[in-house]
Amino acid sequence: MNAEEIARLVGGKLQGDGTVQLRGIAALEFATPTDLSFAESPRALARARASRAGCILVPEGVELPGHLTIAVQSPKASLAHAAEILLLREKPASGIHPTALVHDTAKIAPEASIGPYVVIEKEATVGAETCLGAGVYIGSQVRIGEQCVFYPRVTIYPGAIIGNRVILHAGVVIGSDGFGYVFTEGQHKKFPQIGQVIIEDDVEIGSNSTVDRGSLGVTRISAGTKIDNLVQIAHNVVIGRGCLIAAQTGIAGSAQVGEGVVMAGQVGVGDHARIGARAVIGGQAGVLPGKIIPADATVWGTPARPLDEFKQAYRLLARSARKQHRRNPSSRR
Amino acid sequence: MNAEEIARLVGGKLQGDGTVQLRGIAALEFATPTDLSFAESPRALARARASRAGCILVPEGVELPGHLTIAVQSPKASLAHAAEILLLREKPASGIHPTALVHDTAKIAPEASIGPYVVIEKEATVGAETCLGAGVYIGSQVRIGEQCVFYPRVTIYPGAIIGNRVILHAGVVIGSDGFGYVFTEGQHKKFPQIGQVIIEDDVEIGSNSTVDRGSLGVTRISAGTKIDNLVQIAHNVVIGRGCLIAAQTGIAGSAQVGEGVVMAGQVGVGDHARIGARAVIGGQAGVLPGKIIPADATVWGTPARPLDEFKQAYRLLARSARKQHRRNPSSRR
Amino acid sequence: MNAEEIARLVGGKLQGDGTVQLRGIAALEFATPTDLSFAESPRALARARASRAGCILVPEGVELPGHLTIAVQSPKASLAHAAEILLLREKPASGIHPTALVHDTAKIAPEASIGPYVVIEKEATVGAETCLGAGVYIGSQVRIGEQCVFYPRVTIYPGAIIGNRVILHAGVVIGSDGFGYVFTEGQHKKFPQIGQVIIEDDVEIGSNSTVDRGSLGVTRISAGTKIDNLVQIAHNVVIGRGCLIAAQTGIAGSAQVGEGVVMAGQVGVGDHARIGARAVIGGQAGVLPGKIIPADATVWGTPARPLDEFKQAYRLLARSARKQHRRNPSSRR
Repeated sequence: MNAEEIARLVGGKLQGDGTVQLRGIAALEFATPTDLSFAESPRALARARASRAGCILVPEGVELPGHLTIAVQSPKASLAHAAEILLLREKPASGIHPTALVHDTAKIAPEASIGPYVVIEKEATVGAETCLGAGVYIGSQVRIGEQCVFYPRVTIYPGAIIGNRVILHAGVVIGSDGFGYVFTEGQHKKFPQIGQVIIEDDVEIGSNSTVDRGSLGVTRISAGTKIDNLVQIAHNVVIGRGCLIAAQTGIAGSAQVGEGVVMAGQVGVGDHARIGARAVIGGQAGVLPGKIIPADATVWGTPARPLDEFKQAYRLLARSARKQHRRNPSSRR
Repeated sequence: MNAEEIARLVGGKLQGDGTVQLRGIAALEFATPTDLSFAESPRALARARASRAGCILVPEGVELPGHLTIAVQSPKASLAHAAEILLLREKPASGIHPTALVHDTAKIAPEASIGPYVVIEKEATVGAETCLGAGVYIGSQVRIGEQCVFYPRVTIYPGAIIGNRVILHAGVVIGSDGFGYVFTEGQHKKFPQIGQVIIEDDVEIGSNSTVDRGSLGVTRISAGTKIDNLVQIAHNVVIGRGCLIAAQTGIAGSAQVGEGVVMAGQVGVGDHARIGARAVIGGQAGVLPGKIIPADATVWGTPARPLDEFKQAYRLLARSARKQHRRNPSSRR
Repeated sequence: MNAEEIARLVGGKLQGDGTVQLRGIAALEFATPTDLSFAESPRALARARASRAGCILVPEGVELPGHLTIAVQSPKASLAHAAEILLLREKPASGIHPTALVHDTAKIAPEASIGPYVVIEKEATVGAETCLGAGVYIGSQVRIGEQCVFYPRVTIYPGAIIGNRVILHAGVVIGSDGFGYVFTEGQHKKFPQIGQVIIEDDVEIGSNSTVDRGSLGVTRISAGTKIDNLVQIAHNVVIGRGCLIAAQTGIAGSAQVGEGVVMAGQVGVGDHARIGARAVIGGQAGVLPGKIIPADATVWGTPARPLDEFKQAYRLLARSARKQHRRNPSSRR
């Protein structure tokens, strides 16, 4: 693609020679004359002057003399857009690798790509253009939509339902038994973990994350939600559409998360908690079991409370400690 | 099974037609006329009126006109009990899959089921009716008892000892090297991690959890303990019988955990800490290295302290912050 | 080896019969007469009197009548040193297992050992004496140095660069996509995650840990750094040489960690934070996004602050709560 075509694609204003060919995407400092790059913040724009990038996406109204630029409203979003076209990954050949073990009753769309040492159990279905990496395990009666990408070693327990364009990174486990026991006759007896798990369209889940099936009901990750690495989603959790859940967050059983919620890293959500739509939960915050966080709230701390309240308490405590220290620097008790 | 037989199995009092056939178990809202369900809380009992369940386990003294019910002391426990009979899972056929690689010197009980692409190294033993899922790896000299279930991609390092009826979910790693180094000659040199790991009878461990071997000594998970997903158990840790350890908890080296301890999610236990029997550790709490938590205590916070103390300090701080805020709402320093 | 030879190897002073043969290493309480052990603390030295160990490394100036001892400056470091010689593990035979699938264009050093069901994609290279365990996946164009050990189920995404003597434990994922999206047209669109990941010499990474590739730039783990189990390293993170990062710690995007930094378990580091060289971050501490922690600082708490300050605030709060409680034990609001 040349610069002219990219400018048209992202609806931006080209400044310079539109015939320059672009073949890749790179950060300003690594870019070569065939790479498209972007600069958005004043600091990035300053660094852009020294970049060797063939073309740079910049905010509207910005000029970079001596550089080929395309001015757009959001350089970062336009880069993501251009990347979808420029970086069309070499797709693995469709077909079933000879070492893959596919049960006779499983249905694999002819355009799917099934990698080496994959195991697909009975009555499972795999949709068109879905790609299963090496060593993926698909349990019986699992249903997988179209254009999904499962990286190596993904494991799907029996009966899980997975939508279209779902991306599961290496080591993800979907549909394992939830953590549910009844204490009886002096021991923890397993409570049935036989419910369902549904991963809707356009969900992405990071490496080694785990999503348990419902105990009797359903665990659901709604469309467009993105989940980072090493996240735990317990049984019967329902997560709304378009959420962002950062690494190492854990959501306990039966919690409900509204649409558009953002959780920073290492958040803990207690069982049966309800997080309102578009709420933001700060890093390492802990939402108590059964707690209701209102829509659009921003909370932090353990137990999680409104951000302002958290900051106020924190400031107050820090100030008192300093004062105390001044009065009696050696106080230890 | 019919309702009459289930009533007898759980020792409950049947109300209605005992000849109704039941084939499965489901939550009230999903149940069909061939499903057994349960209702325990007042809210669940209210929902039960609208359920299509063929039969409902209810607390003693409760009636649900128009519904077939079995009255028992603990509906939840009785459901778990009935599930063991009703849900007898189709067992995988015993035998060794032709793609499994089993060393000549390994001993596999004839009734065991060894899945595709399993690798079993020399002198390992696998007990009767134990089932190893696809791609499981069993290191040399590992000993595995009877009636265990290892889900796909479980990895057992050499020398581990695993009891009977142990359930390991997908991606679990048992026996990896502990995190131990000696700083010498300007670098971190590996301290030997050559000890043992013992997983006793009736332990269940959730997906992608990790249990390190002892460095020189032993890491032990005692009988009947249940561990959730993404939990880390470090070298030389000893966990007592019948503990419950929720997701993403981490227990550092040489910590000792008494029997019947309950840890909520994301708890951290420092190295060499000792947790007394039946103690309860609240979510995200952090027990300091070397700290001793008395038996039967309930603690929370980081550093973990008695629950009452934590709550008092929290309330005091919240109140002061509110007062301060009223005096000077714009205070920022 | 006999005791005389070990004393020479570690530069220690032998007390007793130097001809005693030693074949293994064990903790004091498990050691047999052919094992080398060590005792460093006064408590360990007391326990040493009852040990059956064939030879015990002790601190200089210490005598243990009736025991064969070698006095050294650091018994623990000397044990680690001796272990390197005494415990030379039986190496897996070099060569490529017949079930391994190695692309024609991949280059495998003849002394490498490639286990069963390994998959190595095109143009990947594996250095001399490197050992890949069962089911390891190596993406295209990955470069792996010499004398590495990858345990079963390690997954390396395309293009990653891995140095010499790197140890990756079971289930580790290197080079997965970072967690980066642009919100546009009402949905989270994937921002390109096409950068590099570099793991330098002598790095060790624990079971089921994850390291993402750079988005456009580079994720780097510098030489000699040791990482525990279930740790998350996000895109564009740079970690200096010789760090120790304990289990379940998470480091968010573009954070920079200086050399020799120590992080305890479950630490969270926010995006773009910068941790100075040799800083120590206490367990469960949370470093805010963008925050700068000075070199040699010790910090704790969330948000992380200097250890003294944290302790002072904690003490102050505990004292006030106690006082309040004495004045009004039943206060609940």
